[in-house]
Amino acid sequence: MTAEIFAAKQKINIDWKTIAEHMQLSEVWVTSACLGQNSATLDVAKKLGALLNLSDEAVTVLQQFPAKGIGPTIPTDPLLYRLFEICFVYGYTIKELINEKCGDGIMSAIDFSMDIKKIEDAKGDRVQITMNGKFLPYKVW
Amino acid sequence: MTAEIFAAKQKINIDWKTIAEHMQLSEVWVTSACLGQNSATLDVAKKLGALLNLSDEAVTVLQQFPAKGIGPTIPTDPLLYRLFEICFVYGYTIKELINEKCGDGIMSAIDFSMDIKKIEDAKGDRVQITMNGKFLPYKVW
Amino acid sequence: MTAEIFAAKQKINIDWKTIAEHMQLSEVWVTSACLGQNSATLDVAKKLGALLNLSDEAVTVLQQFPAKGIGPTIPTDPLLYRLFEICFVYGYTIKELINEKCGDGIMSAIDFSMDIKKIEDAKGDRVQITMNGKFLPYKVW
Amino acid sequence: MTAEIFAAKQKINIDWKTIAEHMQLSEVWVTSACLGQNSATLDVAKKLGALLNLSDEAVTVLQQFPAKGIGPTIPTDPLLYRLFEICFVYGYTIKELINEKCGDGIMSAIDFSMDIKKIEDAKGDRVQITMNGKFLPYKVW
Amino acid sequence: MTAEIFAAKQKINIDWKTIAEHMQLSEVWVTSACLGQNSATLDVAKKLGALLNLSDEAVTVLQQFPAKGIGPTIPTDPLLYRLFEICFVYGYTIKELINEKCGDGIMSAIDFSMDIKKIEDAKGDRVQITMNGKFLPYKVW
Amino acid sequence: MTAEIFAAKQKINIDWKTIAEHMQLSEVWVTSACLGQNSATLDVAKKLGALLNLSDEAVTVLQQFPAKGIGPTIPTDPLLYRLFEICFVYGYTIKELINEKCGDGIMSAIDFSMDIKKIEDAKGDRVQITMNGKFLPYKVW
Amino acid sequence: MTAEIFAAKQKINIDWKTIAEHMQLSEVWVTSACLGQNSATLDVAKKLGALLNLSDEAVTVLQQFPAKGIGPTIPTDPLLYRLFEICFVYGYTIKELINEKCGDGIMSAIDFSMDIKKIEDAKGDRVQITMNGKFLPYKVW
Amino acid sequence: MTAEIFAAKQKINIDWKTIAEHMQLSEVWVTSACLGQNSATLDVAKKLGALLNLSDEAVTVLQQFPAKGIGPTIPTDPLLYRLFEICFVYGYTIKELINEKCGDGIMSAIDFSMDIKKIEDAKGDRVQITMNGKFLPYKVW
Amino acid sequence: MTAEIFAAKQKINIDWKTIAEHMQLSEVWVTSACLGQNSATLDVAKKLGALLNLSDEAVTVLQQFPAKGIGPTIPTDPLLYRLFEICFVYGYTIKELINEKCGDGIMSAIDFSMDIKKIEDAKGDRVQITMNGKFLPYKVW
Amino acid sequence: MTAEIFAAKQKINIDWKTIAEHMQLSEVWVTSACLGQNSATLDVAKKLGALLNLSDEAVTVLQQFPAKGIGPTIPTDPLLYRLFEICFVYGYTIKELINEKCGDGIMSAIDFSMDIKKIEDAKGDRVQITMNGKFLPYKVW
Repeated sequence: MTAEIFAAKQKINIDWKTIAEHMQLSEVWVTSACLGQNSATLDVAKKLGALLNLSDEAVTVLQQFPAKGIGPTIPTDPLLYRLFEICFVYGYTIKELINEKCGDGIMSAIDFSMDIKKIEDAKGDRVQITMNGKFLPYKVW
Repeated sequence: MTAEIFAAKQKINIDWKTIAEHMQLSEVWVTSACLGQNSATLDVAKKLGALLNLSDEAVTVLQQFPAKGIGPTIPTDPLLYRLFEICFVYGYTIKELINEKCGDGIMSAIDFSMDIKKIEDAKGDRVQITMNGKFLPYKVW
Repeated sequence: MTAEIFAAKQKINIDWKTIAEHMQLSEVWVTSACLGQNSATLDVAKKLGALLNLSDEAVTVLQQFPAKGIGPTIPTDPLLYRLFEICFVYGYTIKELINEKCGDGIMSAIDFSMDIKKIEDAKGDRVQITMNGKFLPYKVW
Repeated sequence: MTAEIFAAKQKINIDWKTIAEHMQLSEVWVTSACLGQNSATLDVAKKLGALLNLSDEAVTVLQQFPAKGIGPTIPTDPLLYRLFEICFVYGYTIKELINEKCGDGIMSAIDFSMDIKKIEDAKGDRVQITMNGKFLPYKVW
Repeated sequence: MTAEIFAAKQKINIDWKTIAEHMQLSEVWVTSACLGQNSATLDVAKKLGALLNLSDEAVTVLQQFPAKGIGPTIPTDPLLYRLFEICFVYGYTIKELINEKCGDGIMSAIDFSMDIKKIEDAKGDRVQITMNGKFLPYKVW
Repeated sequence: MTAEIFAAKQKINIDWKTIAEHMQLSEVWVTSACLGQNSATLDVAKKLGALLNLSDEAVTVLQQFPAKGIGPTIPTDPLLYRLFEICFVYGYTIKELINEKCGDGIMSAIDFSMDIKKIEDAKGDRVQITMNGKFLPYKVW
Repeated sequence: MTAEIFAAKQKINIDWKTIAEHMQLSEVWVTSACLGQNSATLDVAKKLGALLNLSDEAVTVLQQFPAKGIGPTIPTDPLLYRLFEICFVYGYTIKELINEKCGDGIMSAIDFSMDIKKIEDAKGDRVQITMNGKFLPYKVW
Repeated sequence: MTAEIFAAKQKINIDWKTIAEHMQLSEVWVTSACLGQNSATLDVAKKLGALLNLSDEAVTVLQQFPAKGIGPTIPTDPLLYRLFEICFVYGYTIKELINEKCGDGIMSAIDFSMDIKKIEDAKGDRVQITMNGKFLPYKVW
Repeated sequence: MTAEIFAAKQKINIDWKTIAEHMQLSEVWVTSACLGQNSATLDVAKKLGALLNLSDEAVTVLQQFPAKGIGPTIPTDPLLYRLFEICFVYGYTIKELINEKCGDGIMSAIDFSMDIKKIEDAKGDRVQITMNGKFLPYKVW
Repeated sequence: MTAEIFAAKQKINIDWKTIAEHMQLSEVWVTSACLGQNSATLDVAKKLGALLNLSDEAVTVLQQFPAKGIGPTIPTDPLLYRLFEICFVYGYTIKELINEKCGDGIMSAIDFSMDIKKIEDAKGDRVQITMNGKFLPYKVW
């Protein structure tokens, strides 16, 4: 399904931003669904199928509940690795600050959204990633 | 050094926000330096030492160049793990979008800053993490 | 802190059930907090400290935000291992049924409670573990 | 065999609950057998074959003794991972309580049953997993 | 506790066979309990304490519920490794024969006993290990 | 070769015991050779080929020197895992007793035989595995 | 794509030095792009395609953004392993000297170039690898 | 020994360059020996001992044959990791070019030297690492 | 290529000793080249091709520079494992003796040869493996 | 015990060759026993104790049955690693030749001896390691 979508996307020469605007959804979510990491509703899958002229099978697969995550091995691709490096270097800093601000609990990775922006800068463009997740306090029972 | 700082911080009952404002630096950077993941200049180390009444040794250690990162094992603490889960689930999505927007290269984890905010919300507070890193294009030579 | 609690518990010869009833909390939560896997409020920590005659330091540690989870290595203790075996053998079954009943999402391990019971049975006593977690649907944005 | 069953199930648009009721067996057991994690008797395999119109080969495979368990790697799918997280965070709590209630021994994962329920709740639906295993005391000889 | 027992055993120059006969238990079980892999009743612990002149603390530890198993790493000691090699080489053979003889299920490692014998032989002495575990059939529910 | 043998065995509906008696060899050895873990002589391979009507190629492969052992990963199949659990829990016990009885050395896994029996028992059938290996003393030179 | 390039290179019997001179790029960069570890611009990809008579598909793949790095497993090929050995033996030496000379930061592996030379020597030829990366100081914010 | 050297070096406020010039050896070799990764001759060890006023014990340890290399785990310190990343991304490129230039063999990591330089640059300073190792051809016998 | 050579070798029923004598090379080297672990010159590859009637492709592959080594996983085949066991048990002994005899350095595995012999013995035949590698002293620079 | 022996050896400035000649045993065996990888008889332990003036405790430890082998992690020390590299590169070659010469079986690492020699050579000294182990044929039963 992912291969079909990438081929279709290249064929009509459309970028994720345009696809996302057409879908009235965010770039990150749409890309993740096309990479098999999120599950689309029937409407969303059909709309994407119509836009990219996908096969019925691809439209069906888009609606399934995928096994998510790229295995527990940390990848060596430098762009991907930097994300893990941020977790290794700043992980306990993030834990310390969330715990101090909100108490015992976590930032949800499910009730969660993300935004990725290129920020133009004369000294060199920058990338900004914004993550927003619900704080889930540990239940006491 | 970290243990001394945490004890001193608890003794005078001060939070990271107040420390950071006093230092005129961000909460994330100050916390990471106190956790031994960033290196302070002499001025910064002295100012923190004065605020928290740290030993000379702790002030010296704050200026050293630490071996960063919490080992290559993925931690099981749920708050820490969620950060890795985001990398596993959304890693290729991030790569795809950065590559499409900026070309072949990475978001730097060195020329990099981060901000962590609690966002109050009637349906449950949220945590917002903003990462901002320089885009480094691959050199061709 | 855990060692002090276990010694105190043995000294006054009290079981977790009695401690939990005294605390008006569940056995599982109280035991997990004493094992350093959950964080107590000031009131809860003081009440436990009074019951078991704990040191001030132990009462303080009970209120901290612990790094949770026993590392990513799967333990070889047979009782512990059986829990992982259930995940290996029935993991995809659980995913299939939760996805079919509730859609794409997870059972929360944070907004979560658990109960453990011994069920007497003439053919051999049984253990019943009941887990109850909020269903968190994946956000679409 | 699993692929054939899932295709057949989708074709006649039947859910696991209905299949299980028809088989007079539990949803969890039937799903696990269809995922190749449990072994069916001839009668059970034939009944399922008739219901779903399976090939003779699938009916035969359902009766074999599968190599169970999804390998020793901890999966990154968030729903699956939460099950392992519960083991990491609450494993020693479960051991402590089973040992205190029943003595030295384990909860069997073989003489074992499980039930999975969706519990509707105005504040958000919940998932309840009930595990029931025979307590096996360590033999002294 | 193990160190104390080994020192005491060496001091009075007694072998496991003699200890086991005195305890009216098997050599394997007694040795495993002294190595912290099985849990003794009060009577058994006291009898062993009297025989070896152990401290009260050692007698108490013998009655606790140990975390069993020597971690998931396969040891390189040649005697220990050969046991794992037998599992690697003959594991599926054992599964095939138990499944054929008894159906789907396992040989219990809990309701289990073991005997180790030296068998004198002119062509070189032999070691015989006999394992005896209850067959546990998989439950269908 | 293994697949061909299993298909042939199922076709003529013969069990390992009968095959082994026909071959005048033990069940364990014959099964292990058919699983590609032992090497047959020409005579043995031909006799098995005749009994099961195997292809010439299978008869040839039976005589080769296989790369033995199922990789160094510990399997999650519960029957297989129990064998490793016995090694983890009782490994040092076995070492202690063999060393005490025989001195420094090992039980050979090469000059080795094994027998697997079902023992009928009113309280539940049992499985008995008997391993017999030459004691090899460490050479001093 | 890599296989096609290697076959084409062998067919016209050309070495990397000649290819690189024709491309007016370095040997190391050209080789790395052909091995799928760097991304070519349209012009570069076309020029290489013309030189080696590559298919349109190979020319397209050369321009994609590859997932870089040969997995996190350390290879056993002796030539490759020596590179890792240098990192293991001299890694902290390199860190110490870069930190002393430049302060807290890293040598970039992205704004980076490398040169590999054979140096003829009567006592045995030598290999010289020169790495040149931008020093990136850690940002303080 | 390393700790003593670093303390002595800090006390007299001397850098590696000055130490190396005094020793008439390279900075890299001297640093590596002080980090316990190379072995000094008696003369070298004494000269360093005199310069830094080291204890006799440190002078002795400098002459021993250390177990080299920082374990097989890839470190998460970003400066150290970048060295491994270069091996992952450019490893096969280096192999391809050395093999083409010199034939089957390796660059020695023993008959080996390294130089590390800071190169000042208006657009940002750079780090240059030069490795020089003997080419060792595979023996044919 | 390896498969073709083994089939050809079996077809003309020739052993490695005879092949090696014909090639005027050692058995070990010839076998290793046929297993894809060493690289043959044109002459050697052609001579072997003529002897075994190999395809042109196999003759070409024999001359390539293979990626050597069977991955970093320690194999479970008992014959292979014993080689690793010798390294685990006697590794530091070998280091101690080479360092004492020759100083700081290594035995080369590149400028290296090996011989394998069967030694007939009334008490059981023996295998003798002789390894001969150049001593490479660590360079001081 | 090992530390005591090494200190004693250094104090009287004796090498392993001289120790071994005094003991009328081989250098390799004596060194391995002193490194805790082989077990000495009472006589041997006493004789070594007398030569090196060891404590009674060291003499006792020399006679115990050590847990052998340096863990399953492959060491990064270059001298040690080369031994593993030889296993990775030549492992299957050794298996092929032993199997062809002797049939299915292994070279014992228990009924085993080793010799290490420095061979002086004008082109650079060499190290020769000779391993001699009993061939153990797989038992058929």
